[in-house]
Amino acid sequence: MSKHILVYGGKGALGDRLVQYFKGKNFKVTSIDLKESEHADVNIIVNDSDTLEQQAKFVNESIRNKLNDERIDAILNVAGGWAGGNARAEGFIKNSELMWKQSMWSSLIVASLASKYLKEDGLLTLPGAAAALEPTAGMIGYGAAKSAVHQMTKSLAAQNSGLPNSVSVFAIAPITLDTPMNRKWMPKADMSTWTPLEYIAEWIDEPTSRPKNGSIIKLTTTNGKTDLGFH
Amino acid sequence: MSKHILVYGGKGALGDRLVQYFKGKNFKVTSIDLKESEHADVNIIVNDSDTLEQQAKFVNESIRNKLNDERIDAILNVAGGWAGGNARAEGFIKNSELMWKQSMWSSLIVASLASKYLKEDGLLTLPGAAAALEPTAGMIGYGAAKSAVHQMTKSLAAQNSGLPNSVSVFAIAPITLDTPMNRKWMPKADMSTWTPLEYIAEWIDEPTSRPKNGSIIKLTTTNGKTDLGFH
Repeated sequence: MSKHILVYGGKGALGDRLVQYFKGKNFKVTSIDLKESEHADVNIIVNDSDTLEQQAKFVNESIRNKLNDERIDAILNVAGGWAGGNARAEGFIKNSELMWKQSMWSSLIVASLASKYLKEDGLLTLPGAAAALEPTAGMIGYGAAKSAVHQMTKSLAAQNSGLPNSVSVFAIAPITLDTPMNRKWMPKADMSTWTPLEYIAEWIDEPTSRPKNGSIIKLTTTNGKTDLGFH
Repeated sequence: MSKHILVYGGKGALGDRLVQYFKGKNFKVTSIDLKESEHADVNIIVNDSDTLEQQAKFVNESIRNKLNDERIDAILNVAGGWAGGNARAEGFIKNSELMWKQSMWSSLIVASLASKYLKEDGLLTLPGAAAALEPTAGMIGYGAAKSAVHQMTKSLAAQNSGLPNSVSVFAIAPITLDTPMNRKWMPKADMSTWTPLEYIAEWIDEPTSRPKNGSIIKLTTTNGKTDLGFH
């Protein structure tokens, strides 16, 4: 039976890449997003005007109905976005709430899904940000929300977090340096969302290849080559 | 002119103590809370059913109208609460959102207030939690929200955060050990909200006495005596 991967944010720039990549590897791919992914096998379309609780209930029920007691091999949350602003900025409050909604609503929902539908030895990734490991005075809401994602990653990796046995949880924090070669390699890509897909594929296939559970994984891409750092 | 302190959560267990303590030191005290504090000079009553943006707008306008171009000496946010739950727990999503709302809505609002109304050399404190410096598998939403408060504390203390010059920002993270002597000293208190008021008073009076800007200050109270740790 083919492996089943769930991409939260499967219609975003990185999400779409993940969907197509894993389809190419004969995975069954479910996309959860505000819009339908034409490349996914199964789509779950979230209503953006629903509350967090409504979204969580809808997604949980939709997944349960479609799974038929199967388990999922990996849940990759690549939802998120960016908005800046210091405490004095126009839109500081609004943008800070948006950052929470984009990174943490999705992360809370996938944590809930993982607790019920991820298989033992499964993989869960959350959308981290290397910048949030330091103060982020010019993007306060973004840094706070990503810091919440990081701490939650470590909580989910700890004992008695409610996840199935031997699940690995990582926060993926891509950094792309803006070099001429990177621009050449990724001419149209959002530079902030470049992630080496082959690493994730290997972590799904080979649990022994995975970094330490609970790691925040910095991915630094330079001239088309990606290095991993762990926090 | 007497000093002016603003207590966000002035009707809570710790907030009420702060209000009364600083009234006793002849401060002008403004309380922001869902209910009126009978001990405060000025009350701003927030409507719990308003959105974050509505609350922020209302509080900002209320403060502006009451200040007459004065500046505030200190803003102490002691709003917050606690709810547990791992990823599998009943109420995980709901409680996690509540934790965000209690700790981060109030912290975003006071950051906005501080950017406009705190004086130079002023003091801003946010409600931290020592537990969130480590993984919190049994209270995932709480740890994530408090981690966001901690990172935001460091962002606000950094250059160009939008706060007035020389403002100090701390996250206050009380730890109370449950010893017989503590129970004797604080027979009716919420053990988690014991904070040495004299430290805060000194930090307001004497900026040179303050810890490093951006510190998460662990307050460990044992047998009625409080020790400070910094993170």
